[in-house]
Amino acid sequence: MPITHYQSTSLILEQEEEKLYFKIIDQRLLPHKLEYVTIQNTEACIYAIKEMVVRGAPLIGIVGALGLVIGIWEQKELTAAQIWVNHNAPLIENIRPTAINLRWSVQSILDVVKNEKNWENYRQAALRTILHLIEQEEKRCFQIGKWGLELIKKIAAQKSGEPVQILTHCNAGALACLKWGTATAPIYMAYQNNIPIHVWVSETRPKNQGYLTAWELTQARIPHTVIVDNAAGYLIQEGKVDVVLVGSDRVTRNGDVANKIGTYLKALAAKAHGIPFYVALPSSTFDFTLKDGKQIPIETRREQEVTHIVGLYEGETCQVQLTESLAYNPAFDITPSHLVTALITERGICQPTSESIAALFPEYFENPLHNFILKL
Amino acid sequence: MPITHYQSTSLILEQEEEKLYFKIIDQRLLPHKLEYVTIQNTEACIYAIKEMVVRGAPLIGIVGALGLVIGIWEQKELTAAQIWVNHNAPLIENIRPTAINLRWSVQSILDVVKNEKNWENYRQAALRTILHLIEQEEKRCFQIGKWGLELIKKIAAQKSGEPVQILTHCNAGALACLKWGTATAPIYMAYQNNIPIHVWVSETRPKNQGYLTAWELTQARIPHTVIVDNAAGYLIQEGKVDVVLVGSDRVTRNGDVANKIGTYLKALAAKAHGIPFYVALPSSTFDFTLKDGKQIPIETRREQEVTHIVGLYEGETCQVQLTESLAYNPAFDITPSHLVTALITERGICQPTSESIAALFPEYFENPLHNFILKL
Repeated sequence: MPITHYQSTSLILEQEEEKLYFKIIDQRLLPHKLEYVTIQNTEACIYAIKEMVVRGAPLIGIVGALGLVIGIWEQKELTAAQIWVNHNAPLIENIRPTAINLRWSVQSILDVVKNEKNWENYRQAALRTILHLIEQEEKRCFQIGKWGLELIKKIAAQKSGEPVQILTHCNAGALACLKWGTATAPIYMAYQNNIPIHVWVSETRPKNQGYLTAWELTQARIPHTVIVDNAAGYLIQEGKVDVVLVGSDRVTRNGDVANKIGTYLKALAAKAHGIPFYVALPSSTFDFTLKDGKQIPIETRREQEVTHIVGLYEGETCQVQLTESLAYNPAFDITPSHLVTALITERGICQPTSESIAALFPEYFENPLHNFILKL
Repeated sequence: MPITHYQSTSLILEQEEEKLYFKIIDQRLLPHKLEYVTIQNTEACIYAIKEMVVRGAPLIGIVGALGLVIGIWEQKELTAAQIWVNHNAPLIENIRPTAINLRWSVQSILDVVKNEKNWENYRQAALRTILHLIEQEEKRCFQIGKWGLELIKKIAAQKSGEPVQILTHCNAGALACLKWGTATAPIYMAYQNNIPIHVWVSETRPKNQGYLTAWELTQARIPHTVIVDNAAGYLIQEGKVDVVLVGSDRVTRNGDVANKIGTYLKALAAKAHGIPFYVALPSSTFDFTLKDGKQIPIETRREQEVTHIVGLYEGETCQVQLTESLAYNPAFDITPSHLVTALITERGICQPTSESIAALFPEYFENPLHNFILKL
């Protein structure tokens, strides 16, 4: 009988004898099919992140670190493990360049295991650390939800019973994290608190992660409507949006926000109409080593994501573009801090400024190469 | 043998004995297939406009008026024709609400035929007028190209041989007009004048008219790259765009611009980075009866355009959205004049202000219910 170390909808971590493995939802098949794949080794883990079987900054952080831990467990003694880790940790950290969570979670494991001089302690420390990271990431999302709920309550108070109209982008939901999600946590909590809400879901070409959000909201019975990304400006212009609420892949010391391509356009529209633009993020999404967003590497993905669209039903894909035309596929953009109303973190809400971020996270701000184990 | 009254790639108008009919490209099949459909009666014409067999403000203006003219020719005498026109002209004018060209072209026909008291003269006047309108619309696009070319030349002069990077949205090309197009006319002319250019083509969900632009540019061998609509802000942010150049469906007295949904977001990004944002339009796209863009009706189209994507190959469609989720599909947005650098018209380039528009089009500005026959 396998031992279950952790279980949520997004992730199941099991051990059978000396072998660790985990199961994750293949998000490429959603929303048409809820199917788990079992990740048995580090190579499969790297593939899953690269091919977006899993996506979402917090989740890829956890899954990358899991890839490290199950790889460690495959080694049979300390020296082999140390050599293997030295070689593979940098590979895992760099599977995808924009989301910072991957680096922090891997570094957190490394920081703990480096002090272990005994094989059994080494591998147990690795396992214990990933379980801590998972537990912490869940708690962070829960706290984000609580802080964000207060913001939604304030808006609701001015709407005299009309639904609070929330515009989101991409999927910063439970699928992108473990539970609750980041941008969706306040939405779920508002719904549970009987605050009338309606979510505008931007489909988020090229990979259409908006449909993952629509799927999540459908499961939770939260009223929502899908729009094409182009429609966001018009909705805001027409007063149909009270608040924009998104997640993030990396936030720098000054409050600049890297997030899924198209976020920046929504931030510009929100600013033009005086609508609040909130970014929800766990502290694991901050990059305290970077001064501003110009330093964030932006991933370019393959053309095929633009030229072909994957449909709702299995195996259904459409080529939408002529093969004679080129395509270009940057995956993220930077929303400069002056367009961000506030950051919603597990420790509370702060302004997108160095001062405000430093006040909330003084120890990380002063020690940019911190690890997240410190917070346990 | 039929008489050919007019022939271009977009439109062929023929007469066989007493019957008028025309052939148009079924743009729903492009870019995978170049196929003409023959429009024999007014009902087929209304269907073609409603279902976007033809699209593009100038072209639907012409095709709507053609629907009126071929309907007139089906009547056999003056009184029947007058009764038929009274009933059908308003229907045709309102097939699609946002593009103003439809109204002007129909009104132009009505203004001429109302003075004819003899059946033969009546129907010949209708035919003569539509041919005039077509000729004028072509000339307008040609002139827009010449004026726009000067703007591109100025940008090229500062690029020391590097390509001028032009971002466009939707299709304001020859397909949307008769020849040259509006936004594409300066592009075609720049290319013919050996000015190095590269066009960023925004795919323009939900209907992906960007792929029509990509198809046109492929035919003309003009370098171009397709992006998803979300990527426009990032490209501008990264300095990869020198100028944004779009068409329009309606421009009001103060220079507010209705155009395909998503245009507004590009205008916001252009403004934020000091990139010029030009709108190319023939005078038939002005609505001198409206003070500003708030008065322009915005068409909402069916959800299926959002939930399903039509692929490149015949019969290939993808359902991308869960049927449990709602969708909302506004087809246009308003770019306020303060975001528009200038309007490129057949008479020259003007500021998006009442004063500047009035200076270029004094007779229409003073007589908002003008018809376009006056210009012949």
